[in-house]
Order: sequence, then C-alpha cells, then structure tokens
Amino acid sequence: MDYESIFSVSASKMKASKIRELMKYAAMDGVISFGGGSPDSANFPFDDIRNIINGWDNKKMAVAMQYGTTDGYPPLIEAIKNRMINLKKLNPEGQKIMVTTGGQQGIYLISKVLVSAGDVVLVEEPSFIGAMASFLSNQAELVGVPLESDGVNLDVLESTLNRLIKENRKPKFFYTIPNFQNPAGVTMSQAKRRRLYEISKKYELVILEDDPYGDLYFSGNADDYRPIKSYGNEAPIVYSGSFSKVLCPGFRLGWVFGDEQLIGKASIAKQSVDACSSAFGQVLACDYLNSGVIDNYLTKMRAIYKEKKDFMVECIAKYMPTCKATNPNGGFFLYVDLPNGISGDALFKKTIKNNVAFVTGEPFHVDPVEGDKHLRFSYSGSSLENIEKGIKVIGDAIKDFS
Amino acid sequence: MDYESIFSVSASKMKASKIRELMKYAAMDGVISFGGGSPDSANFPFDDIRNIINGWDNKKMAVAMQYGTTDGYPPLIEAIKNRMINLKKLNPEGQKIMVTTGGQQGIYLISKVLVSAGDVVLVEEPSFIGAMASFLSNQAELVGVPLESDGVNLDVLESTLNRLIKENRKPKFFYTIPNFQNPAGVTMSQAKRRRLYEISKKYELVILEDDPYGDLYFSGNADDYRPIKSYGNEAPIVYSGSFSKVLCPGFRLGWVFGDEQLIGKASIAKQSVDACSSAFGQVLACDYLNSGVIDNYLTKMRAIYKEKKDFMVECIAKYMPTCKATNPNGGFFLYVDLPNGISGDALFKKTIKNNVAFVTGEPFHVDPVEGDKHLRFSYSGSSLENIEKGIKVIGDAIKDFS
Repeated sequence: MDYESIFSVSASKMKASKIRELMKYAAMDGVISFGGGSPDSANFPFDDIRNIINGWDNKKMAVAMQYGTTDGYPPLIEAIKNRMINLKKLNPEGQKIMVTTGGQQGIYLISKVLVSAGDVVLVEEPSFIGAMASFLSNQAELVGVPLESDGVNLDVLESTLNRLIKENRKPKFFYTIPNFQNPAGVTMSQAKRRRLYEISKKYELVILEDDPYGDLYFSGNADDYRPIKSYGNEAPIVYSGSFSKVLCPGFRLGWVFGDEQLIGKASIAKQSVDACSSAFGQVLACDYLNSGVIDNYLTKMRAIYKEKKDFMVECIAKYMPTCKATNPNGGFFLYVDLPNGISGDALFKKTIKNNVAFVTGEPFHVDPVEGDKHLRFSYSGSSLENIEKGIKVIGDAIKDFS
Repeated sequence: MDYESIFSVSASKMKASKIRELMKYAAMDGVISFGGGSPDSANFPFDDIRNIINGWDNKKMAVAMQYGTTDGYPPLIEAIKNRMINLKKLNPEGQKIMVTTGGQQGIYLISKVLVSAGDVVLVEEPSFIGAMASFLSNQAELVGVPLESDGVNLDVLESTLNRLIKENRKPKFFYTIPNFQNPAGVTMSQAKRRRLYEISKKYELVILEDDPYGDLYFSGNADDYRPIKSYGNEAPIVYSGSFSKVLCPGFRLGWVFGDEQLIGKASIAKQSVDACSSAFGQVLACDYLNSGVIDNYLTKMRAIYKEKKDFMVECIAKYMPTCKATNPNGGFFLYVDLPNGISGDALFKKTIKNNVAFVTGEPFHVDPVEGDKHLRFSYSGSSLENIEKGIKVIGDAIKDFS
C-alpha cells in the first residue's frame, strides 16, 4: 500500500537534514568532508573512558545498565548544576535541569511543549538546521532575524516581535546560539546579550539559548562567553547544553536548564518520547565531570581546534581569494560568502566528483535563494593535510566558474 | 511568568506516566516494588559487557564515541536483520530496519508520522501506558478493544473498525503486544494472529506490533511466539523490538522493522528528535548479537524469570485467595482482578505505607473505572524473598477491606 495518503500533518512538515544525508558521503573512503559537525574522533579521551568503566563494580554497572528516572541520573544532574553555577554563572533558583538524549532532544522537547500548529518561532538567519527541523516537525512557522558579526540584529528582532504581537501572532520563542554560531561561526557580544535579556524580560519572550560549543573558545576565558541566561532568572530563558562536544556524541547526552514549570512539562513529554536517556552514558558522564578529566580534555581540544581553524582560514585566503569567510573565535564552523553569481549547490556538484564535501548555506536559511550564496565548512573533524587538500579542490572549482 | 498559557495543544494532551513516577518509590531504600517493568539487574551480563568493551581498539572506540547515521550502525542493522529472518521468520523484502532510542522511541516515531490531531488509534484494553502516552502526545483519540485470555477480541476489533470507517474515522493503526502482554500477561494465539494478519491486509489497517518480551518465553520455542508480521508483507505491519529486555535498558536501544516508505519517514522524524541513537550502545549490541552471548543470556534469564513468576503465582494463591490473576507464559507481568468493591487506588495507599508498591490498572485502561479494579504486578526485578514479603503485605491489606 502507499503510505503517503495516511501520513500525519507533522510528517508533511518534516525536512530531511542535508547534513545527516551528507554523513553517507563523509563515511565513504577517500572523501574529505567539511560537511558534518563531528568532533575530532582521533582525539577522543579513549583511555579516560576505559578507565572510568573499568573502575565500576557490579553494583555501579547495574545502575548504568538499568532504566533511570526521566529527569536523569541524580548525581549527574548535581554535577551539571554545579558546573552551570560555577562556570556559566547560572542561578539555579526556581530552575530545573533535565538530562536529554543529546542536545537535539532538548531542543525538540522544548519546541514540542510550546509550539502548536502555525505558531511562530523566531530564528537567527542563518541558523542550525537540526533545530529548525525540530520546530518544523512541531508545525511551527519560522521567521528569520538577520545575524551580524556580533550576533543577531536586535533592532530587527524587536520590531519583528512588535509586528507579530500586533498581528496577534506573538512568537512562542526565539532560538539563538550565542557562542560560535552554527553555521555562521560568529559570537554574540555581551552588550547584545544583556540587551536581549532585557527584551526577553520586557516582552516575556521565551529564549531557547543553545550552547553546545561554549567551552571550546580559542581566546579569553569562560566569563567572556557567559550565557544570556547568566544575567538572571527574571527573563524566561532556557539554556541547552550538550556532552557531544566536551566528551563525545556517542552516548547521546545533553541537558536543559530552565524554569521548573517549563522543564517539568518537557519531562512529561520525554516520558513518551524515549522514557529516559542512557543510564550507562549518564553514570560515565558523571564520573567524567567529577574527576576533572573534562577540563584536561577541553584544554587539549581548544588548542587542537584552534590550530585547525587557523589553518583553514589561511588556506581559504590562499586558495579561495575571491571568497569572504568568518574567522570564528571557537567552535567547529566557519561560513563562506561566495562571489556573486556562484551557486553553492552547483559548486557542491563539482567538488563531490573530486571527493570533497561541504554543506551549502541553503538548509540554514529561511530564504533558500540567499542560502545558496554561502558555504558552511566544519574544520573540527579534518586533519590539517585534508584541510589543505579539500580547500584547494574547492578553490579550483570556484576558479572554473569565473 | 506562568507558562501554562503558552503550552502547546500537544502538551495539554500529555499524560504523566504513573509508572515513571513510581520509579521514585522503587528507588527508595526498603521499598518492595512490583511497579516498574525493570529487568533483573542482579543478573545483567556484567562481564560480557566489560569484555566486549575492553576488546575494542581505539579505531573501534572512535566509531562507538562518534555520531552515527540516523538509521543506525550498519553492522548492527545487519545483525538485527539476520536475527529477525532466522528467529522471527520476518521477510525483509521491501522492508527497512531503523535503530531507535529504546523501543519507546520506535512507538513514538511511528505514531508521530501517522497521527494528526483527532485521529483514532485502536489499542488493546488494557494496554501499555508508555505507548498510549505517545499516541496521546501526538493528539490521537484512543479507542479500546477488549483483551481476552488468548489475545484481543477480533470480532469487536472488526466491528469497531467497520463502524469507524463508516463514520469516516478510519483508525491510523492498531497497537498490539501479542506476546506476554503488558499489563495483562496474556499471549495472542497463533490462530488469532493469522486472522489479524488477514484483517490488516483486507482493510489496509496498519498494525504496530510491539514485541519487547517475545524472547522471554517460559515454555515451547521461538516458533510458538512468531510475530503477526511473520505471516507476510502483504499486510501493513510494523514490528517493534527492544534490547532493554534481552541485553539491558541502559543503552536505550530498540528497532522498528517495517515497510521502507513508512520507516523512511520515521527516520526523517528521528533526525529532529535526537539525530541518532547511541553509537556506543549500538557497537556494543552488535558484538553482543554476533558473539552469541545473547543466547546464553536468554537461556539463563528464561529460567530465572520463570522461577520468579511461578513463585509469585503461588504466593498470590496463598496470600490473596480472593483475587484472580493471570499466569503468563513469559515476560515480566501478571494482572490481578480485585474482588468486587475493592479499589486498586485505595489498596495502593494502604500498602505503600508498608513499603510495598505496584501499579493499579487505571493508567492501562481507556476506561479508568474499569482500570481501578485491577493491579499489575511485575515479578522481573524482585527477589523471591521480596516477592513473598510484598504479596503478603498486599494480601493482608485486601483482607482489611473485607
């Protein structure tokens, strides 16, 4: 039978992720991929993980192998809470933490409990495709707010908000990645964060603050990247964190930190989505945080990712001189503006023949025409050698268009 | 601010799981809980798991710690496929397997891609609360079909189906647990399975066949419990499996096996829900299947669970002589009919004061009044000693009501 006629309205709104599809290319032998947002798997903390697991007796193994509560493993919640207070300056009063199955699930659950069909969600333009896919699958209407080199344009945000309120379509929330934005690689200034906090408070506009990369800065210290939510709890801000970039993605662990009423509702939603996140991963992540192994790993990875980023920026200047690229201060991504008239999609079709993959800007933009003028490159997963080889192939292909 | 006014329609349909809430009791020191459906954590395959992980070199660890594709780790999909063909007699032609974050997620995703607000879903009455919560959170309307000692009443199923079709409300699917049903502990006869297959084919009625306990039979062999889906692919049947009961729940792994169009759509839905399931768990589950360790474990656990079940049935006869209970042929649960006039909820309030917990039938029934006349007991996680102690406390409490 043909299922098309019985699929749900939600299914018809779903957008397949180009990045997820690209993972098939990335996994092919000989392909250099700047496409996915994968961490550097050559430098995972292999021995630390083995040592932690081998240190467990059967009693601890039994906890790690059993079902857990939906909110998460209590000692891990405590460890996350302490880190959020000490490092991110978040105030836990009236707030609740829930462990999620990757950062992606936190984003999905918050949108699931807030978005009804047709509700508006504000997003930075460009923004993270995985988050936008979550909002669309909950039948949101996305409205983009332009991103600048120091974060989202707040004047446009406020005027858009006022217009939508007048039209009786107040947005359910604004989704932002303030640190080393995905895909653009830009960071929101602290001045803008403070003003955004005030806007959120004034309009009671929920902000979903996604911060998977915040610990991977290339200069300064944690205070320079303090979250919007660190300005207080008088504005309705949910902070979303992830273990995928500070430990590894393979256990699917993240968390949300927000008002207890909102997170309590998200926890009920999680019961029907996957009941609980991996206890094995949670017991491990708890030991990883409490032993301090995480901080050694972050120190090491900041240097490694910075070297990759610096080298990719250098290669772009050398091999793609007609392109403009952002120079991120942390994270995994930089964003390239193509010369006028060159289509990202056409370029991809050329370079993939030479085994080089990336993502065009198209899936990150509410406006696909604008998106096709950009490329997102991830340097996180590639060796320096492959960065040079790949950028050269892309540079040569751009010259062929001229 | 008060979030109540901005929660989504979906959030308003969500039902908190009494079982998930009961896990708080179960975790308390000194409480004997027959409430949850947790496997016996004293008998997890601890050393097998340690040995598998310690056998991995850094290259394999890197795969286990990285993101994977949304459909799942290809060697695991292959291993599941072979097991489904050989053991469950499923035909892979035109079908697709997707790994899910626990069996719960498979149920959630299938309902997400099929159910629009107000659509009817048919369920056995009583049925599994976690599945019903998924359907409700996708805004389904549940219609119950009575369960009998040899499975669902197919005459009522067919007449209900015909009535709903006439009303232009054809159900999106029928959800069933044919083996050792949760909560009732009954098993659908093969004659009923064959007839259900024909009904599904005739009406193009999708069947979601949930089989988390199918390998844990107490007599006979796998053929005696062959899935409805094993009768062929001409009926639209999705088979849902889980690693939670045949390995452990702590990695959150399950799978769905169904038509490639339907599972392909569910895979797009999964992208926005959690991107992919734990690669660590998948690499491990793959080695666990391919090494044959799973079969040794199942042989051992069938005997252990059978002993617990037999003893609980014996204790019920001894301490709760005025109650009728099912005598399941596998799985984790049995279902108790209370004597007339005794409320399950009132009984729970009495026994919890003596540190004994269970779940009343209420959350498993579309009709809560009927549900309050029943109790679900799980014997899987309790020691023989605690089974006797707990049943005695419940039996004494029932006597107090008389």
